[in-house]
Amino acid sequence: MKRAIATVSLSGVLADKLEAVAAAGFDGIELFDNDLVASPLTPREVAARCADLGLTIDLFQPVRDVEGVPPERFDAVLHRFRTKLAVVRDLGAPVVLACSHVGADAVDDLDLTAAQLHALGDLAADEGVTIAFEALAWGRHIDRVGQAWDAVRRADHPAVTLAVDTFHILSRGDDGSALAGIPGDRIGFLQVADAPLMDMDVLEWSRHFRCFPGEGTLDVAGVVAATLAAGYAGPLSLEVFSDVVREADPRTTARDALRSLVFLEDQVGVAGQPPAPASVDPAFIEVAGSPAVPPLLESLGFSRAGTHRSKPVSWWRHGDAHVVVNDGPSPSPGPAVGVVAAPVSAVAARAKALLWPEVDRTRGSGEAHLPGITSPSGLHVFVSAPPGDDDDWQRDFTPSAAAAPGLTGIDHVVVAVPPDRLNEEVSFLRTLFALAPGTVEEFMEPHGRLRSRAFRPSSGDLRIVLNVEEVGSGRASTGITQVAFGCADVRSQVRALRAAGVPLLAVPDNYYVDLDARFGLSPVLLADLREHGLFYDRVGDGELLHAFTAPLATGFHVELLERRGGYDGYGSASTHVRLAAQRRH
Amino acid sequence: MKRAIATVSLSGVLADKLEAVAAAGFDGIELFDNDLVASPLTPREVAARCADLGLTIDLFQPVRDVEGVPPERFDAVLHRFRTKLAVVRDLGAPVVLACSHVGADAVDDLDLTAAQLHALGDLAADEGVTIAFEALAWGRHIDRVGQAWDAVRRADHPAVTLAVDTFHILSRGDDGSALAGIPGDRIGFLQVADAPLMDMDVLEWSRHFRCFPGEGTLDVAGVVAATLAAGYAGPLSLEVFSDVVREADPRTTARDALRSLVFLEDQVGVAGQPPAPASVDPAFIEVAGSPAVPPLLESLGFSRAGTHRSKPVSWWRHGDAHVVVNDGPSPSPGPAVGVVAAPVSAVAARAKALLWPEVDRTRGSGEAHLPGITSPSGLHVFVSAPPGDDDDWQRDFTPSAAAAPGLTGIDHVVVAVPPDRLNEEVSFLRTLFALAPGTVEEFMEPHGRLRSRAFRPSSGDLRIVLNVEEVGSGRASTGITQVAFGCADVRSQVRALRAAGVPLLAVPDNYYVDLDARFGLSPVLLADLREHGLFYDRVGDGELLHAFTAPLATGFHVELLERRGGYDGYGSASTHVRLAAQRRH
Repeated sequence: MKRAIATVSLSGVLADKLEAVAAAGFDGIELFDNDLVASPLTPREVAARCADLGLTIDLFQPVRDVEGVPPERFDAVLHRFRTKLAVVRDLGAPVVLACSHVGADAVDDLDLTAAQLHALGDLAADEGVTIAFEALAWGRHIDRVGQAWDAVRRADHPAVTLAVDTFHILSRGDDGSALAGIPGDRIGFLQVADAPLMDMDVLEWSRHFRCFPGEGTLDVAGVVAATLAAGYAGPLSLEVFSDVVREADPRTTARDALRSLVFLEDQVGVAGQPPAPASVDPAFIEVAGSPAVPPLLESLGFSRAGTHRSKPVSWWRHGDAHVVVNDGPSPSPGPAVGVVAAPVSAVAARAKALLWPEVDRTRGSGEAHLPGITSPSGLHVFVSAPPGDDDDWQRDFTPSAAAAPGLTGIDHVVVAVPPDRLNEEVSFLRTLFALAPGTVEEFMEPHGRLRSRAFRPSSGDLRIVLNVEEVGSGRASTGITQVAFGCADVRSQVRALRAAGVPLLAVPDNYYVDLDARFGLSPVLLADLREHGLFYDRVGDGELLHAFTAPLATGFHVELLERRGGYDGYGSASTHVRLAAQRRH
Repeated sequence: MKRAIATVSLSGVLADKLEAVAAAGFDGIELFDNDLVASPLTPREVAARCADLGLTIDLFQPVRDVEGVPPERFDAVLHRFRTKLAVVRDLGAPVVLACSHVGADAVDDLDLTAAQLHALGDLAADEGVTIAFEALAWGRHIDRVGQAWDAVRRADHPAVTLAVDTFHILSRGDDGSALAGIPGDRIGFLQVADAPLMDMDVLEWSRHFRCFPGEGTLDVAGVVAATLAAGYAGPLSLEVFSDVVREADPRTTARDALRSLVFLEDQVGVAGQPPAPASVDPAFIEVAGSPAVPPLLESLGFSRAGTHRSKPVSWWRHGDAHVVVNDGPSPSPGPAVGVVAAPVSAVAARAKALLWPEVDRTRGSGEAHLPGITSPSGLHVFVSAPPGDDDDWQRDFTPSAAAAPGLTGIDHVVVAVPPDRLNEEVSFLRTLFALAPGTVEEFMEPHGRLRSRAFRPSSGDLRIVLNVEEVGSGRASTGITQVAFGCADVRSQVRALRAAGVPLLAVPDNYYVDLDARFGLSPVLLADLREHGLFYDRVGDGELLHAFTAPLATGFHVELLERRGGYDGYGSASTHVRLAAQRRH
């Protein structure tokens, strides 16, 4: 399937965009008229530049407000279209995108629209090009794909076809079924874009928040699959505008864009990437070694469980929670996370197919195959097979002692991501590990805001929480800022931590007054929470009791949490209290 | 009138907020429950801290979801309210804010709501406090102030009053007339906030985009005036949450906030600030002297028109356009602007009343009173009286030569403002000079976005365009980036510039092809535009022909423009082409 991208999806001037698109490996472009108008390159020079770079110009976009025009003004439209067709001829583009009329003076008359599209089709046919007519989601009278198809059908001209755009279809609440019955050879172009679900003016939503497939929440794959099922065989072309891509380096954007198309092809079954792992579980946290680490781990109840067979790496364990201490060179400046996602070789191959980087596969004889993959924000993820398998990470270690009981495992890992990397990071988790995003939660920090979203696999216990801090200039943390360990009795864990001298986050007494107001807790439970400095939440029959250490390193905390009765969240009602307490430390 | 602000309007932890509010000169606060819950200070300690700082706690906010509650769950509400009332007692706050129920399980039964408010009123009365009931704009069943008043009226309890919030009223399309017939003694609290008009989910709008009065476009003064007319005599209290204030220094926010209240009081006639100037016109541009400046001005057609009587400052003139070259210390690093806004002493007094800084009023004997005021973004504005007046800036100069004809004056000045300073800058232009903002226009830059808004007085010719560049990290310009001079024949001016060797912005030929497509221009006009490298726009009978110099200093351009037939805009349809051309230079 031919892969294309609209030049409007990238920042920079036209010449920069073309180079970035070619370097990422695209086959073609949609040329945005504004990019051409602002360029000193003539249309023929643009065509030559594209040819040199191995790119075809698959679409010229867009001509606007050319149908539903009051008849007395249609001559001006014909002049405008003829002038642009001369440009298209020089470009050698086979298709011209026409969007539905947005003007206040657009005429609501489908017969007039069809007749005008037919007239434009005659001009296009003379130049040997095709019009693809698109229903803009904010078109004045034509804003649904079904209406656009009705207009195209009535125009009844071989040079007038339908443009399918996933954003315009999905943002109006339609889905792939809206394409039922449309013959594939009448679909002249397929534009794809994703977006987060937002309740706002659709034009603003489209302009500022589109993103690449896999970064948003729209069912892009459903519309693409329906378009392919209809028999469409043209390019799969990305058209994304957003505040993020406007400011990003076009070379980075082009790589992300291509990656999202590969993922999309995978979803709709037109390419044969290795499948995502069936389940993903947390395995261990890796931290860089230092003289302070062993006593800290001991105070947290961990004990040395083994030594790596070939590297200066030790394995620490507390119940079913594992920490690996790396006294050699670390793959990332902060902590890394190990996950169980089998088969390991398939994950590694999938990462490669999706263009994610892969690093450090050095293995000794008989050691596990433990590829490490670094996410866009710098999170390093080791991939292991389940215990007992050849590629089980534990096989790399010579066990030295049995573990004391205590923690039940790694409950979740919190990763701070810079705002301009969030889309890529989401894409990494979704495309490589098939983790599904939860809803975005937003919290006030004392000096900014925190947006938070949890990711989980459909099967398995890995929970990764991505945090984006908006705190003005340059004070935001990055990387793993928090590791939450599960336990069956958080009170006993807190007592053990206190006994070991681990400083805990101080919870203000006002918080417990508020808890009582909100939940009407029993005096016994309330006293227990107060005594142990616990945070608390309740949803239905589920309860969460959890505590945080004071910062153990700059901006890094350990959380201990006890989930009761199927509580499935993260205690977000208390987050503002915790953030203020952390700020005080 | 007592001036208050909600602690939620400021960033920081509670102790920081209280200090900032006191330092700015407020009389009281609304205490946001989350701020208290997250604070290690007990309620009594907070009360003592406020007393020390000279602040009263005028409101405790909010209790939520306390009415329209299914009867079987109302006991839990009473427990919650009793617990919070104990806190309120320790705080010594006289009023508790209750917001309308937002939960999906809220019961749509005004009698139930009234009965429950009555029951809460009994508890409040026992503690000697009053409930102020507010219709949240996103309340489940009660989202208009009229509905809230209906509930309060039916509750029929002296301790149950109405809360008036300008944002909640105006965001739903109501205005001050919605308060008609409500007795002022039944209005328990007045919260004020402004916002830009936005078409989006009202909760998101409220959370992220509120701003202080004078920074947005809502008719805040209308609602406040209606509330005062009803007889309300309580505090005027700001409640603003936004992404901007979340990240700003609380001391800065508190000063801006107090300033906005002074402005609001001025608008509703409860304070006696000097009025805004009746008209505002551009007078001159001041630039710092350097050996390069005189030849540059000469190449732009300016000639030396006079010398300052006491300072190393020269006056240059081209037709009716004036430039002042300051070889002494400059009030700002970039160019400054002089405006005619009389009487000067009233403007200076108004600036002082509005807490805007005033600088550099050194005057020689017999010299004009020329105060200079620096805007929040650093724009320096000199204020002069009209020609011939005692405070006319030209009186400071000994004229040396008559001016050659040519330019008709300063058409507009473009000022680049950092995104986090925009609200303050808007406030400066609106409150001091009564300039009215036009609509926000948004443009794509090659590496980011540009948001632009023109400000004009109701009378007079000053036009200031504020540009906010969103270009990722740290490449945005600040200060005056462009001065546009008007002329009667831009083509002759371009020819003169070319003859003088001034480099002009190169306009791509594709732009003229596009102009022809859009406007169907006569070949003569099109050839003229091409030959002179002009940008063009047409709206109705009005036409704009304009040209730009290449950068004369880093990021600084001169524009020459000819308005024909009453054209009133800035040629925004060509802006993307100009921005790309400027980027190429």
